Amino acid sequence: MANNIFLKLLRVPPSTQFACLRSGRSLRKKAAALTAAGSRLSCSNPPPEKISRYPIPYKKDLPYDIVVLMEEVESKGGFLPNVFKVLSHRPAEFRAFFAYYNELMNKDTGRLTKAERELIVVATSSYNKCLYCVVSHGALHRIYSKKPTLSDQVVVNYKNAELTPREHAMLDFAMAVCRSDTITDEHFRSLEEVGFDREDAWDIAAIAAFFAMSNRLAHLTDMRPNLEFFNMGRVPRDKSKNKAEDDL
Amino acid sequence: MANNIFLKLLRVPPSTQFACLRSGRSLRKKAAALTAAGSRLSCSNPPPEKISRYPIPYKKDLPYDIVVLMEEVESKGGFLPNVFKVLSHRPAEFRAFFAYYNELMNKDTGRLTKAERELIVVATSSYNKCLYCVVSHGALHRIYSKKPTLSDQVVVNYKNAELTPREHAMLDFAMAVCRSDTITDEHFRSLEEVGFDREDAWDIAAIAAFFAMSNRLAHLTDMRPNLEFFNMGRVPRDKSKNKAEDDL
Amino acid sequence: MANNIFLKLLRVPPSTQFACLRSGRSLRKKAAALTAAGSRLSCSNPPPEKISRYPIPYKKDLPYDIVVLMEEVESKGGFLPNVFKVLSHRPAEFRAFFAYYNELMNKDTGRLTKAERELIVVATSSYNKCLYCVVSHGALHRIYSKKPTLSDQVVVNYKNAELTPREHAMLDFAMAVCRSDTITDEHFRSLEEVGFDREDAWDIAAIAAFFAMSNRLAHLTDMRPNLEFFNMGRVPRDKSKNKAEDDL
Amino acid sequence: MANNIFLKLLRVPPSTQFACLRSGRSLRKKAAALTAAGSRLSCSNPPPEKISRYPIPYKKDLPYDIVVLMEEVESKGGFLPNVFKVLSHRPAEFRAFFAYYNELMNKDTGRLTKAERELIVVATSSYNKCLYCVVSHGALHRIYSKKPTLSDQVVVNYKNAELTPREHAMLDFAMAVCRSDTITDEHFRSLEEVGFDREDAWDIAAIAAFFAMSNRLAHLTDMRPNLEFFNMGRVPRDKSKNKAEDDL
Amino acid sequence: MANNIFLKLLRVPPSTQFACLRSGRSLRKKAAALTAAGSRLSCSNPPPEKISRYPIPYKKDLPYDIVVLMEEVESKGGFLPNVFKVLSHRPAEFRAFFAYYNELMNKDTGRLTKAERELIVVATSSYNKCLYCVVSHGALHRIYSKKPTLSDQVVVNYKNAELTPREHAMLDFAMAVCRSDTITDEHFRSLEEVGFDREDAWDIAAIAAFFAMSNRLAHLTDMRPNLEFFNMGRVPRDKSKNKAEDDL
Amino acid sequence: MANNIFLKLLRVPPSTQFACLRSGRSLRKKAAALTAAGSRLSCSNPPPEKISRYPIPYKKDLPYDIVVLMEEVESKGGFLPNVFKVLSHRPAEFRAFFAYYNELMNKDTGRLTKAERELIVVATSSYNKCLYCVVSHGALHRIYSKKPTLSDQVVVNYKNAELTPREHAMLDFAMAVCRSDTITDEHFRSLEEVGFDREDAWDIAAIAAFFAMSNRLAHLTDMRPNLEFFNMGRVPRDKSKNKAEDDL
Repeated sequence: MANNIFLKLLRVPPSTQFACLRSGRSLRKKAAALTAAGSRLSCSNPPPEKISRYPIPYKKDLPYDIVVLMEEVESKGGFLPNVFKVLSHRPAEFRAFFAYYNELMNKDTGRLTKAERELIVVATSSYNKCLYCVVSHGALHRIYSKKPTLSDQVVVNYKNAELTPREHAMLDFAMAVCRSDTITDEHFRSLEEVGFDREDAWDIAAIAAFFAMSNRLAHLTDMRPNLEFFNMGRVPRDKSKNKAEDDL
Repeated sequence: MANNIFLKLLRVPPSTQFACLRSGRSLRKKAAALTAAGSRLSCSNPPPEKISRYPIPYKKDLPYDIVVLMEEVESKGGFLPNVFKVLSHRPAEFRAFFAYYNELMNKDTGRLTKAERELIVVATSSYNKCLYCVVSHGALHRIYSKKPTLSDQVVVNYKNAELTPREHAMLDFAMAVCRSDTITDEHFRSLEEVGFDREDAWDIAAIAAFFAMSNRLAHLTDMRPNLEFFNMGRVPRDKSKNKAEDDL
Repeated sequence: MANNIFLKLLRVPPSTQFACLRSGRSLRKKAAALTAAGSRLSCSNPPPEKISRYPIPYKKDLPYDIVVLMEEVESKGGFLPNVFKVLSHRPAEFRAFFAYYNELMNKDTGRLTKAERELIVVATSSYNKCLYCVVSHGALHRIYSKKPTLSDQVVVNYKNAELTPREHAMLDFAMAVCRSDTITDEHFRSLEEVGFDREDAWDIAAIAAFFAMSNRLAHLTDMRPNLEFFNMGRVPRDKSKNKAEDDL
Repeated sequence: MANNIFLKLLRVPPSTQFACLRSGRSLRKKAAALTAAGSRLSCSNPPPEKISRYPIPYKKDLPYDIVVLMEEVESKGGFLPNVFKVLSHRPAEFRAFFAYYNELMNKDTGRLTKAERELIVVATSSYNKCLYCVVSHGALHRIYSKKPTLSDQVVVNYKNAELTPREHAMLDFAMAVCRSDTITDEHFRSLEEVGFDREDAWDIAAIAAFFAMSNRLAHLTDMRPNLEFFNMGRVPRDKSKNKAEDDL
Repeated sequence: MANNIFLKLLRVPPSTQFACLRSGRSLRKKAAALTAAGSRLSCSNPPPEKISRYPIPYKKDLPYDIVVLMEEVESKGGFLPNVFKVLSHRPAEFRAFFAYYNELMNKDTGRLTKAERELIVVATSSYNKCLYCVVSHGALHRIYSKKPTLSDQVVVNYKNAELTPREHAMLDFAMAVCRSDTITDEHFRSLEEVGFDREDAWDIAAIAAFFAMSNRLAHLTDMRPNLEFFNMGRVPRDKSKNKAEDDL
Repeated sequence: MANNIFLKLLRVPPSTQFACLRSGRSLRKKAAALTAAGSRLSCSNPPPEKISRYPIPYKKDLPYDIVVLMEEVESKGGFLPNVFKVLSHRPAEFRAFFAYYNELMNKDTGRLTKAERELIVVATSSYNKCLYCVVSHGALHRIYSKKPTLSDQVVVNYKNAELTPREHAMLDFAMAVCRSDTITDEHFRSLEEVGFDREDAWDIAAIAAFFAMSNRLAHLTDMRPNLEFFNMGRVPRDKSKNKAEDDL
């Protein structure tokens, strides 16, 4: 039940997801109401630590659909990942970003497991030296894979991490895309040898390509990872598990 | 009237743009009707030349909203840029891609001219060795800027191209983002010296970041530019101007 | 008949080519006469645009043999490529440069076609970010190959350009030389697989090496390509063809 | 008289230098006579060690002007540098190469000393990993500069070699050209600070550019330095000096 | 009292440390006795997971001084870091390695804190992609600094980590040494600006240099970090603290 | 007898080598006596040329064991290599450094010859642009190998140096370690093909790793090679051989 993290959230029906697009951008009234109701959203209580080089909008100033999305993410995951706050500085770009993200990271088809998708993000984001994505997706990988040290290994050096041949080939391909190498038939053959077809290749490459973008946006904004991410998924859960990890 | 190219097309109201999201993905009936009506869309008449490593869907198999978008683009621009055909292999990703693209490249606010946005694409795509983006956005730059040789110069070496100090600083910043450099206050100061503020910085960086993704998708698919792009905007128009350039 | 471009010019008999070497350097009288006669050489009518960081000599100050060469090149090709003007700042180096150039680019022996030689120049000059050579030799390639888009493809990325296996192997070797890689027997084997022998290897390498020099001289002088080069060979010729392209 | 090395040789009057160009290329009769007379040229007595990947022509098969040049070089310098033998495989290119070389390395004008020119060759050839040029021009530098260890220092790392600020600035500029950097006004300013003007800049850059070519030709041919070069100029001369170093 | 980790261990008096050197290398008798006594050393109970590409010696086969050192380290730290086991494959090199390590990392003089020394190791080892050193010294940094996330930040990108200007300058210098840059007076000036003198520079550089070696030995042996390191120092200690972290 | 160079010196029994460790660091009395006795150690007569960025201690201020070591090295080798003087600035690090050095470079076991060990140092130090190590170990290689030009070749480019396949494979592996590549089974297989086993691999890698450290210490201190090294081993010895080379 749990463990589906805020990402699942994004798999909402399109009608909800892009409601904003239909209703315009200045839903001040509704937003004001929401704020009055006492939102738990941290962007209305700006945190002392700086999470972006750009201003974080107050919730009351955000379009309704974005507020709804944020609240759902936060209530499910226990905290709101900073990428939501930071990118809400540009609501229209926010919507396109998360629609794309959702499509690539939460799809139910294809051979890539959720853990494998996160591993692609970790490896390529480490190459791009993106603090936010390495730390947050490293956490997600730990949770999905239930392997508490593999993402740390991949951050340092995927070439000698404890990977299966399949994972290794997957990351070799993802890194070729990450470096903007010219992709050749040889690349596809290497994937086929471990059981990935051309549609899987697209999935791997699209994730690597999307995070090529995300990493650069994080550099632009100096996006900082939530403290919660650093320890998420590191220790086996027991009775006294905390809510953040439990509900993901 | 002319010169607004297929891009303007994308500035359609959200309600239209994401109609597909409301109406589901399998609009076989409508699409079939469209095809029966004798579409001019080249993807229903697959061209002899190969434009992607992945199959190009027949129009009849595409969601209605995508078909509508393609037809509008083609009727306005005189031809359908191959990126539409190639990415339609994944309709959901297609929608997110073009929504994002539209937001960044066709926005009416900010200090960046359309020509400047294209110049960012040309410079960063050249660094990433992306044939499709260099050729197609080089063409768009020629049309928007009415400078027939500047984009060719930037393809080879933006550092000695005939740029204004403002354009030079803009490309220096875009290239820092393109390389995934760690962005510092120093970068923002260099932009401020030529009159760009932090919101302009976001615009520049977001374009560079988005094409970091696009370039990699083009490498994945081995996307080929339409022949029309190579010569677009190279010669001053006269009476015998051809339609493709005239209507853009 | 046409299409032999200014290069053919350089295939003049040595007695003419190096006449200057016999007759000394200050042929003021003859040069003055030439100038009086109303030369069409643009260096006597310095163009408004800046084509070099160094001064362009007036024709009357140039040695006779260089003036003769320039006039022949201009009359045959319709315009004088700027490299002639820029390098005439150093007449003795000018002579050695063009003697070498002529030997490599205009020889009648060996398996390399003229178009292939130009392709080597385009690929290696693009790597070296040399605006002048990319633009001017891209133009020559279009004319010799009658392929209007191939050089543009190679400028961006020869690895996914529409090349034959022979052309691809040729450029792989040229790029190894261009990067100053240590050349091994393996390199020669790759050439042999597509039908090039060791003498062809020398031809390819010598062109790559010569343009390693040329590219750097162009960087030194900030040499600018003639505007004519940008569009040369892009469109099929018809009745209203202009002289520049017709006579090349 | 001594110490002027084979290079001075090349400063012969143009009429002699390019005699071959007037008299045609197949002077078999004269060459045969020369050979009969018992030439000391090692290319007629091919050395046991391999000095090139390409065949070294027999003297009798070489054009007369090249034989004359080789004999003069050898009689003055005590041995014939292998570059003459290796490049004689292509006589026409040989002539252009040495005409250019002579113009750049043996000119009497400008602020660059002979030792400084050699230092440029050593630094840039080391970057290009060219064995022949590093070893042979390292030797020439030792002789011209009378500094027996400076070239060895520059081979390893010019940045901490015992250079004057002038030499350091000169090599910084030469290395920028060597790497095919885009040359800017800033580069010229750095040279001016140590007393070099724009003509000196051309001299420095032209040498760096010419050896960008030479280094690549040496890689192509796997050109090996003569053993004599390794020790030339390392020890102060005394009474028992050997001929090779004495006559240079 | 605690928190002094196995490192302090190494600050044993030289007479003890190098006892082995006096007493010869084959202390089979004593070692056998030790083993008989039931050592807790894991190398006598080889762990199931593979920690090195080379064999790990049984304790009974190790020289006495090394066994003594290992036992002290293990009893103080709660576990024996794998580097001790892996390098004991070469006892003489083991001794030199840890003598050097001890001298650099455990010295009581100089301005560098223990946490700063570990930070240098983390930053440079990340550049060298050394899994063992990044994970183990990241752990030590967390413990010494009591900052649970800073080392993770530095692993990804020290340039945007939450560093003081002093730490930033320290890492800039360490990275210059790590990359084998030519060190200049400018480097020392940058250190002086934040209060480091030349002796501190030596300390920083010597650590960076020593781990240049260590990282490469870890690559050679495919050295794997102990699982304990991954979580060490991540969570604030409370009553139920585990022994491993408590005693360090 | 001869040719054993100062290195052999370091193969002294541990009891002597680390005597200092037992006897403390301030042996002022003995050192003073030594100095009074008229030491030939150059560090008591500081040379005019600068050999380090850090002060060179006077012999009287050095620990006794270090003085003894230096005097033995100097008396055997004819001169004291500057690395001893430069590193004596930090006596404790000096001891660890030379103990390690001795272990790797002077061991009597394994398949690596002394010349091969030196060749590893030359190739890797050249990559790291370390003047001191290239010059001093190039000299040692000449002496051990009796090949007067091979180290100069390797300094410039080991890939086309006159190496045996065994030497070539050895340097390929050493360079992989030098660059901090991730070492894989493939690397070991390449070594096995030329007869090296895993223990030899350790030897090669440990030398490359140790000099990764040494090169960086040399950069820190701007360590300058003794003049003697530049010419050592270049000329075949005859009757009038000089002492420095004779006694090594």
